[in-house]
Amino acid sequence: MFNIGIIGATGYTGSELVRILFNHPDVSIKIITSESHKGKKFSDIHPQFKGIVDYNLKPANEINPAELDIVFLALPHGISMEFVKNLIKEDIRIIDLSGDFRLSSKAVYEQWYKKEHTFPEGFDQAVFGIPELYEDKIKDAKLVANPGCFPTGAILALAPLISNNLIDKKKVIIDSKTGVTGAGVNPKLVTHFPNVNDNFKPYGIKTHRHTIEVQEQLSIIGKEDVTVQFTPHLLPVDRGILTSSYTTPLKEIAEDELKTLYTSFYSDSVFIRIIEDLPELKNVRATNFVDIYPAYDIRTNNILVFSAIDNLVKGAAGQAVQNMNIMLNLKQETGLKQVPVRP
Amino acid sequence: MFNIGIIGATGYTGSELVRILFNHPDVSIKIITSESHKGKKFSDIHPQFKGIVDYNLKPANEINPAELDIVFLALPHGISMEFVKNLIKEDIRIIDLSGDFRLSSKAVYEQWYKKEHTFPEGFDQAVFGIPELYEDKIKDAKLVANPGCFPTGAILALAPLISNNLIDKKKVIIDSKTGVTGAGVNPKLVTHFPNVNDNFKPYGIKTHRHTIEVQEQLSIIGKEDVTVQFTPHLLPVDRGILTSSYTTPLKEIAEDELKTLYTSFYSDSVFIRIIEDLPELKNVRATNFVDIYPAYDIRTNNILVFSAIDNLVKGAAGQAVQNMNIMLNLKQETGLKQVPVRP
Amino acid sequence: MFNIGIIGATGYTGSELVRILFNHPDVSIKIITSESHKGKKFSDIHPQFKGIVDYNLKPANEINPAELDIVFLALPHGISMEFVKNLIKEDIRIIDLSGDFRLSSKAVYEQWYKKEHTFPEGFDQAVFGIPELYEDKIKDAKLVANPGCFPTGAILALAPLISNNLIDKKKVIIDSKTGVTGAGVNPKLVTHFPNVNDNFKPYGIKTHRHTIEVQEQLSIIGKEDVTVQFTPHLLPVDRGILTSSYTTPLKEIAEDELKTLYTSFYSDSVFIRIIEDLPELKNVRATNFVDIYPAYDIRTNNILVFSAIDNLVKGAAGQAVQNMNIMLNLKQETGLKQVPVRP
Amino acid sequence: MFNIGIIGATGYTGSELVRILFNHPDVSIKIITSESHKGKKFSDIHPQFKGIVDYNLKPANEINPAELDIVFLALPHGISMEFVKNLIKEDIRIIDLSGDFRLSSKAVYEQWYKKEHTFPEGFDQAVFGIPELYEDKIKDAKLVANPGCFPTGAILALAPLISNNLIDKKKVIIDSKTGVTGAGVNPKLVTHFPNVNDNFKPYGIKTHRHTIEVQEQLSIIGKEDVTVQFTPHLLPVDRGILTSSYTTPLKEIAEDELKTLYTSFYSDSVFIRIIEDLPELKNVRATNFVDIYPAYDIRTNNILVFSAIDNLVKGAAGQAVQNMNIMLNLKQETGLKQVPVRP
Repeated sequence: MFNIGIIGATGYTGSELVRILFNHPDVSIKIITSESHKGKKFSDIHPQFKGIVDYNLKPANEINPAELDIVFLALPHGISMEFVKNLIKEDIRIIDLSGDFRLSSKAVYEQWYKKEHTFPEGFDQAVFGIPELYEDKIKDAKLVANPGCFPTGAILALAPLISNNLIDKKKVIIDSKTGVTGAGVNPKLVTHFPNVNDNFKPYGIKTHRHTIEVQEQLSIIGKEDVTVQFTPHLLPVDRGILTSSYTTPLKEIAEDELKTLYTSFYSDSVFIRIIEDLPELKNVRATNFVDIYPAYDIRTNNILVFSAIDNLVKGAAGQAVQNMNIMLNLKQETGLKQVPVRP
Repeated sequence: MFNIGIIGATGYTGSELVRILFNHPDVSIKIITSESHKGKKFSDIHPQFKGIVDYNLKPANEINPAELDIVFLALPHGISMEFVKNLIKEDIRIIDLSGDFRLSSKAVYEQWYKKEHTFPEGFDQAVFGIPELYEDKIKDAKLVANPGCFPTGAILALAPLISNNLIDKKKVIIDSKTGVTGAGVNPKLVTHFPNVNDNFKPYGIKTHRHTIEVQEQLSIIGKEDVTVQFTPHLLPVDRGILTSSYTTPLKEIAEDELKTLYTSFYSDSVFIRIIEDLPELKNVRATNFVDIYPAYDIRTNNILVFSAIDNLVKGAAGQAVQNMNIMLNLKQETGLKQVPVRP
Repeated sequence: MFNIGIIGATGYTGSELVRILFNHPDVSIKIITSESHKGKKFSDIHPQFKGIVDYNLKPANEINPAELDIVFLALPHGISMEFVKNLIKEDIRIIDLSGDFRLSSKAVYEQWYKKEHTFPEGFDQAVFGIPELYEDKIKDAKLVANPGCFPTGAILALAPLISNNLIDKKKVIIDSKTGVTGAGVNPKLVTHFPNVNDNFKPYGIKTHRHTIEVQEQLSIIGKEDVTVQFTPHLLPVDRGILTSSYTTPLKEIAEDELKTLYTSFYSDSVFIRIIEDLPELKNVRATNFVDIYPAYDIRTNNILVFSAIDNLVKGAAGQAVQNMNIMLNLKQETGLKQVPVRP
Repeated sequence: MFNIGIIGATGYTGSELVRILFNHPDVSIKIITSESHKGKKFSDIHPQFKGIVDYNLKPANEINPAELDIVFLALPHGISMEFVKNLIKEDIRIIDLSGDFRLSSKAVYEQWYKKEHTFPEGFDQAVFGIPELYEDKIKDAKLVANPGCFPTGAILALAPLISNNLIDKKKVIIDSKTGVTGAGVNPKLVTHFPNVNDNFKPYGIKTHRHTIEVQEQLSIIGKEDVTVQFTPHLLPVDRGILTSSYTTPLKEIAEDELKTLYTSFYSDSVFIRIIEDLPELKNVRATNFVDIYPAYDIRTNNILVFSAIDNLVKGAAGQAVQNMNIMLNLKQETGLKQVPVRP
């Protein structure tokens, strides 16, 4: 039995971590922290846990690294880096679910996040935690930067094309649509029910922070600069990201060939499903699956790739647990074999 | 390891049974049948199961009772009784999720279901499958009539009052609101998205079949005739039933006393939560929990009881698995310890 | 052409007033005020009005009563009473959409609103603005207290029964379900999309302020004390209130008789539709209609009455315009003849 | 007063035509037809019209062209062409809301619609009914082919770029998201509430019929072949289409310049709003507005254009009424000046 801690309990990634880990056979949650709600029960904040996890929340300074194998940081960016700075000195491994260590450098971070980075040393130590691409590095990582939700869906959709140098890397269009939980647990005008229900809109065009995360990762995979146009939209749904991407192949490719390429690229990836029908959010809901559908349109000479994930699971807590499993030498799917909740 | 079969795979109760049993540690699904889709894969009908349960559907006549410990019937009423008639002769135990054996007699059935009952002998053998009330009978039952979704939420909300003879039994108002999955998997005008979304309405007032199921059960519990006014309404949500019931106490009762009564009545019931805040559908979503909140209004001298369940889990497949666990001498909660999927 | 002013532009009742009055043939909006947004355009706050109503918001002290025939107060309770106190001295007629003058007295107000009332003199001058019941008084009113949203649907559903002394007045159960706009324009935890979507729950049981408003009005109509059990629930929809009420007739009544009674009671009421199918929110959406369906259950001896309104129209701004029309000697339906927006 | 007829009353375009025309000051609806529901009331099919439009539906053969100025065909494609074939001989003008006469030729129609076209002569007589582009032709048209819903949003978003030869015409990406009413009034698996709610998915990729409608129109506007990649997605909302389009400018262009170009291009178009914030479906709901937001991303050298319409109004019935107004020499906005229904 491995011991783990969760720092930051009040957000959706915190409650999803607990939901998933509650039934994990090989780990035990030793501590859950919250500064704003310390002393309260976890189930006071997340009432669905009443009678299931009534654990008393602790302040973060009660974390004892010596007692823990792994700690998850489920904190806002900017705050997370401070915890990493301190914890990294201890004999403990860290999975950071914030955006603080996903990019390449302090300069890039500060340009896109409009905020000072106070622990730039972390960039070198952090491993970008997409298990389908970096399992070996994750296995030994001290610090895993758990990927953003949009980047997870987009990178996994495009990696086979980029990696095999099949497309024009200067013209990658990524049109994504996300559920509202991506905006976090705190009420805002933009998440006020009458502003979302029966509504739909793009937001953060040209400047969304996940743009650079996708672009940097695809550039690493492609071994040359990739230019990404990323546009998020807000869906009137709770969970899920559907990504539609449009690229131009360098030469004509049969659709069959494309499907074979994807199936082969992900042949060892237990959570990737290369599917025969177009993906839907509900087919992955509350699970760690990534459904991917690649297509080639001979009429227009475009490659289209569609992917669906649950933003809170494969886009956050589930992927974090998958990373944890790798770090602990467990099978990747341990504790993650749920069936999608549909309908 | 126990072996089970599922007859009727295409509805929501069928897919929920498979979702739950897939992770059950002590049973193995040996056969899933469908007449209309035999030969197809289960995941062709329910695409969320792609790569998880790709099992080939069989016709029902391939069921071999000798190989199975328990068979679930996830069939429409009227059809289910024919299967029960045949299977009951075999050495196999049956959990029937239809409404065919929930009532007291052929006469009552035919009055409320407007349909001939062709196996009235079954009424005597059937045990009404609410584990919180009838665990002992369920343990040895040959045939369990798994309760209806509305009745489950209503009976559990009112049983403590009726059983303790606290209220006027002639005036029980039950106002229920259900998600759309209660209407089944087949598209109808009433479930067409633009007819449900941003809409709400009552239906089936005065005559809904679940009225008599609730009334008969409460009359058994109360040992005298109970009269129930039951009104269902259709919510623009997928899953869940919220029941608001209004009754008149025979004498004044303190609210604390009421809460104590409920807590005590359900002290051995692992899925019942007597909660301190008003119930919400999402706090029980995709789980077998029943959240109950009793209240007394001294101003009006009314007792109000609110309950929330997931209609597909505690209202159907989850309760069926709970019944199965009891029949197999397993702990009631085996395979049913999921955390509610919220948000 | 009559001149009107609207004090309080940022809430939903404010924007609905402008939406309705924009196409009213006999009135002209002279001023719209907002303290928090003065100087901004109305369409900056309500972007759907871009290019339609780009009017510059004024502070309330720029109201010139001499230029206006009628002023609408679309303000929170507590604040509205201060404006009434000042404006009532002027030669202007007031329609107050807040709850400040709907009840009978300072004492009752303070008990249910938990707040001091600073202009109790207003209670005597205020006419409760349900045109179907009080048209004559409204015609000459100086101050109209525009009814609450829940009370509008409940009072109109029950007035024919109470007025004709047909039911047990001590046992009136009102189970109401409202859209989220009833909670106002400001984001709160309870209106955060992931807390509402695919969810449903009761709230404010036993103590909701609209309880006393309904009870007082029904007592006036019935000429003796009525006791009301009122329970609101929150629907995942934008607009609309569906009210299900349960009462006990003093003597048996045929359902036909009941329908005739309702049709006759509301024969002069252009917005009341006594309908032959159960009501649905979408059949009244964005209009001033009230759909009512009375039923008698001979099995249980209960009378059930269902009503549907749009909480922002007949439950607020539409009824206010209907009151305005009466005060200005216009036909009640002037400017209010929209067709429901369905789907 | 002009007299009009509506052939085909049971779909959403039929009910929207009646909703809009009911308050139109200059026309009178003389006849509404339905083969399947003749003899019934219009409000039996569309219950929101109860007490408003209780008109008795007639069979289509009761149409008397001599009594009518204009007839709307609100029929499925394939059926509509038969009516056009007969009516075009009469002294009556026709607005056809189906897809039967929107394309250039029998050959193109049959390739994309997979169905024989039985009245190819109609292609020459039909005017494509986008008033913002073809007002002069519409004025005198005998037969107007009312545009498809997706094409309306896409063509109006891209016309200024194409018309001014600013972009690479071989690489136009159109990613559209539509409400469910676009799928029509009849229940199907794909519109079953539990299959849509909290879900999202692409459909009809590469082959959707509206692809060729957009491509042909843009090619006419651009005076050379345009290649369009069009992908529709299904939103869990009732109404509205949000289109996100991605194109490559032939040379760099300042965003200000782009906005000026759009404002100027549509300076005479009363329903086009070039807006300063990104468009949202709810800001145009139940109205004939088109909200457009053009943007240039200097980092990627892409032009992005977003547009929002109500698919049932500007995408169908509203645009049809706008066309009718032009044909009758009325102001375009007559009867169409509604304020968007938000929230």
